[in-house]
Amino acid sequence: MVETFGQRLQERIRALGPLCVGIDPSSSLLTSWGRPDTIEGVEFMALALLEASVGAAAAIKPQVAYFERFGSAGYRVLERLISDARDAQILVIADAKRGDIGATNDAYASAWLDDSSPLCSDAVTVSPFTGVGALTPFFARALRGRGVFVLAATSNDEGRSLQRARTDRDEAVEDLILRSIAEMNRREEGLGSLGVVLGATRDRPRFDLAALQGPYLVPGVGAQGATPEQVGRLFERCPEGTVMVNVARAIADSGPERSALRDSVRRWRDNLTTFL
Amino acid sequence: MVETFGQRLQERIRALGPLCVGIDPSSSLLTSWGRPDTIEGVEFMALALLEASVGAAAAIKPQVAYFERFGSAGYRVLERLISDARDAQILVIADAKRGDIGATNDAYASAWLDDSSPLCSDAVTVSPFTGVGALTPFFARALRGRGVFVLAATSNDEGRSLQRARTDRDEAVEDLILRSIAEMNRREEGLGSLGVVLGATRDRPRFDLAALQGPYLVPGVGAQGATPEQVGRLFERCPEGTVMVNVARAIADSGPERSALRDSVRRWRDNLTTFL
Repeated sequence: MVETFGQRLQERIRALGPLCVGIDPSSSLLTSWGRPDTIEGVEFMALALLEASVGAAAAIKPQVAYFERFGSAGYRVLERLISDARDAQILVIADAKRGDIGATNDAYASAWLDDSSPLCSDAVTVSPFTGVGALTPFFARALRGRGVFVLAATSNDEGRSLQRARTDRDEAVEDLILRSIAEMNRREEGLGSLGVVLGATRDRPRFDLAALQGPYLVPGVGAQGATPEQVGRLFERCPEGTVMVNVARAIADSGPERSALRDSVRRWRDNLTTFL
Repeated sequence: MVETFGQRLQERIRALGPLCVGIDPSSSLLTSWGRPDTIEGVEFMALALLEASVGAAAAIKPQVAYFERFGSAGYRVLERLISDARDAQILVIADAKRGDIGATNDAYASAWLDDSSPLCSDAVTVSPFTGVGALTPFFARALRGRGVFVLAATSNDEGRSLQRARTDRDEAVEDLILRSIAEMNRREEGLGSLGVVLGATRDRPRFDLAALQGPYLVPGVGAQGATPEQVGRLFERCPEGTVMVNVARAIADSGPERSALRDSVRRWRDNLTTFL
């Protein structure tokens, strides 16, 4: 039997804590590190953050946009990051937020979750604008050991009018997504591999978060304003090892110096562990 | 003054007709062409479709997913396709459906719309799940001559419950998107550069389609079942040169033979021109 992504993630969180280190080599972060906004700068930052995360974080989450802005050269660096992370046995969540319809989603799922792809990661984030049902090609990979995190409620304000809009069943869009994912997870043994992205800055949805039977990926902590304590309250009844918090800028802000970066990762991990 | 994307597109549609040739080098299409599902197969199909489109279609629309599944090597081919299309003076709509929040969208917008990027296209498709307001970095590039097509109503059934959900203002999500884009276009001189993706298989939204003041990109014709006549009816009162129909599989189905492919492009162009 294939060990599920959900099980692997839960084991990692239990062993190493609930921190996911966001790798966001943006122009502004590179400047703050005194590095040029070039592909070499991106590579330096990505590998430094990876090194600081190994053994201290459950996963890394490269933000694909910051690699894509350099085209194929940026993707070569992302491929190296993913491959180095695999060698170091740290989980990789590709933050790609892909989402289309039909056969196109099969191509995206293949890009991010198939062994044959140089971008193959442990899990990928996806966007459900075309409907949860359209994401089936991603979910199919979850039966083969991969993970998927579907956007439900994002940490920005501009998303609320859409994510809180009400369907024909008088259910908020975010609740529709949470319920659909929970229903699919229920069909799987053990912790499901279908997760949800839920911003820490958001109010509690109506859906009972403890009923997802799958993992949460939680952005919005640190630079975006939410505290570990708020996250603890939001997810208070969720099973142990099912909530993973992404911290990017607040960690990278400690600068490129090796031991400072590693200390920052451990401090955030310890801080989160107190509340989760 | 920068000529807007909206103006350039309108000129092309008037001169060449309303056809956008979709470039979808999928595994199944490559098989039907008797080509291997490899990066070489992808390159062959992409360049053959480009060649058949030059002078006969307003634009090409590479579906990014089919290149991304080969990682950086796939992106190198996409970069070549975009560069060859620029030399041949045919517009390129990168069908990427990107969408995230804040600074991440700035990185995606830079990847697809900035001159400095090897993937720089004339326009890009984006997904509004995080809110239309979050897409501002894309819209900012429209003031510098680029175009954006925001998903409003996709051609698949699974998207309807979300896209038809009702906001606090009792407005359907698809109408909220159409109205928001129209309001932004109204602030610009001439035809706006902010467009919308609206599936030809969908029912008419409540929003008056003729009021967008920007272009429509219409998938769903051909293999997905809608006819040119249906498109004509759906957009009947829209200004000339503002509706562009994407046809991918129905054109590629004519096979790799040069003149057959070119005939197929012209046939679809003529067919669409009758109704639009």
